[in-house]
Amino acid sequence: MGLDKNLLTARLEAAQRVADAAAAIIRPLFKSDSLQVDYKEAVSPIVTQADRDSEAAMRLIIEAEFPEDTIIGEEHGVKEGTSGFAWILDPIDGTIAFTVGKPVFGTLIGLACQGEFELGIIDQAVLGERFLGLRDQGSSLNGEVLSTSGRTELNRAKLAFTSPLKDPGIERIIEAVHVTSYGGDCYNYALLASGYLDIVIERGLNLYDYAALVPVVEGAGGVITDWQGRSLSQGGGSDVIACATRALQDQVLSMLT
Amino acid sequence: MGLDKNLLTARLEAAQRVADAAAAIIRPLFKSDSLQVDYKEAVSPIVTQADRDSEAAMRLIIEAEFPEDTIIGEEHGVKEGTSGFAWILDPIDGTIAFTVGKPVFGTLIGLACQGEFELGIIDQAVLGERFLGLRDQGSSLNGEVLSTSGRTELNRAKLAFTSPLKDPGIERIIEAVHVTSYGGDCYNYALLASGYLDIVIERGLNLYDYAALVPVVEGAGGVITDWQGRSLSQGGGSDVIACATRALQDQVLSMLT
Repeated sequence: MGLDKNLLTARLEAAQRVADAAAAIIRPLFKSDSLQVDYKEAVSPIVTQADRDSEAAMRLIIEAEFPEDTIIGEEHGVKEGTSGFAWILDPIDGTIAFTVGKPVFGTLIGLACQGEFELGIIDQAVLGERFLGLRDQGSSLNGEVLSTSGRTELNRAKLAFTSPLKDPGIERIIEAVHVTSYGGDCYNYALLASGYLDIVIERGLNLYDYAALVPVVEGAGGVITDWQGRSLSQGGGSDVIACATRALQDQVLSMLT
Repeated sequence: MGLDKNLLTARLEAAQRVADAAAAIIRPLFKSDSLQVDYKEAVSPIVTQADRDSEAAMRLIIEAEFPEDTIIGEEHGVKEGTSGFAWILDPIDGTIAFTVGKPVFGTLIGLACQGEFELGIIDQAVLGERFLGLRDQGSSLNGEVLSTSGRTELNRAKLAFTSPLKDPGIERIIEAVHVTSYGGDCYNYALLASGYLDIVIERGLNLYDYAALVPVVEGAGGVITDWQGRSLSQGGGSDVIACATRALQDQVLSMLT
């Protein structure tokens, strides 16, 4: 039995308002003297009022309109639902970048159903850029269709890491590509979907870090998997690699082992 | 004999127009399909039409208005002058970030005289942010006075590198600070002058990379030196460290040896 498209359409419309609600909280707190920063020691060393409040605002909309949907959020945990739909939220992916004043973080909104990532939003509130991917329906930036670079030559590829990764395979890949850019968090995947970056590699991402990325990258013609080339699943964390093309990914995967 | 302030005032007024000219070329080429990218192998692996054309536009203004000033530019080399003033230009510091679509690069305009860095501009054309420092007269962002965070505690400090640095001392510093952000190039120094970052460390910068940074960082109350704590000079390249306060720098320098 296929997915009821009306159910998805209603959630797509809501997802835009969910993103608006987060952006309305995040934008004025970027580079604001009144931002409260806490020091958490668990997964991430830092969390701000902007993370907590924007996730709370997103959940309010989802809970009111789709009370039987599951919600999984980085800051406020899991609310189990029964509808089969799961919203997967990271209010600020790139909290360090946000806190130091670099507009290369993003709000991540993913929607999964029946084991598939159906919808993904990467919203950059400060730059006013909303990247949207829908499974089998392509990706867009503020309504403009996106496609990856289509690049296949490794020695012309532009690679990005959020932070350096210590791994012999990674060292070989850095040697082989044209340029390497550091920093970027989820924004790197948006730039890959837009054709500016060709390879993004990260280690140890959580479900809420990658759920929204999958439809955006795949909808633009890119490939996103774990480091073994397997699909990213709805359960657990993963090492992630995204490439502009399958041909480029094949080369990178063969160097990672 | 002190510096004639009228000579400096005329050049400050011109420097704003020099920055405008560069920004007018760079802004439309950011994320433009028509951008020409070349692959140079020397200092930096990449250079674009935006680098070359914006430096040429800056030099046209300086040569017309101050024909006896020295001009030192990353892309078009050195023109020796006799006035005692030297303009030091990097049209795009962070060409990789520019090319991959991250608005955390900058245009650098420095002015030196009698061995002192008198004026510095870090211009972020896409975000519309112009950071200006004048020796002994403070720093500003679009006319608003800037100051560093004033932070002195290492374990609460926010550190930035453009790229990872392999060094045992660097590893110790990363362990000791609160958070580390990668990427950023010259924009990291602008964020330090604005109070968002507390420590910026880089290796092997050229004169055109740091000349403009010195007045911006010092004018905001920060400290910028080489890794031995010495003033950055008008000759040669250097490893650079900038901190929000002298107290913070003392701690970082002691860990770098």
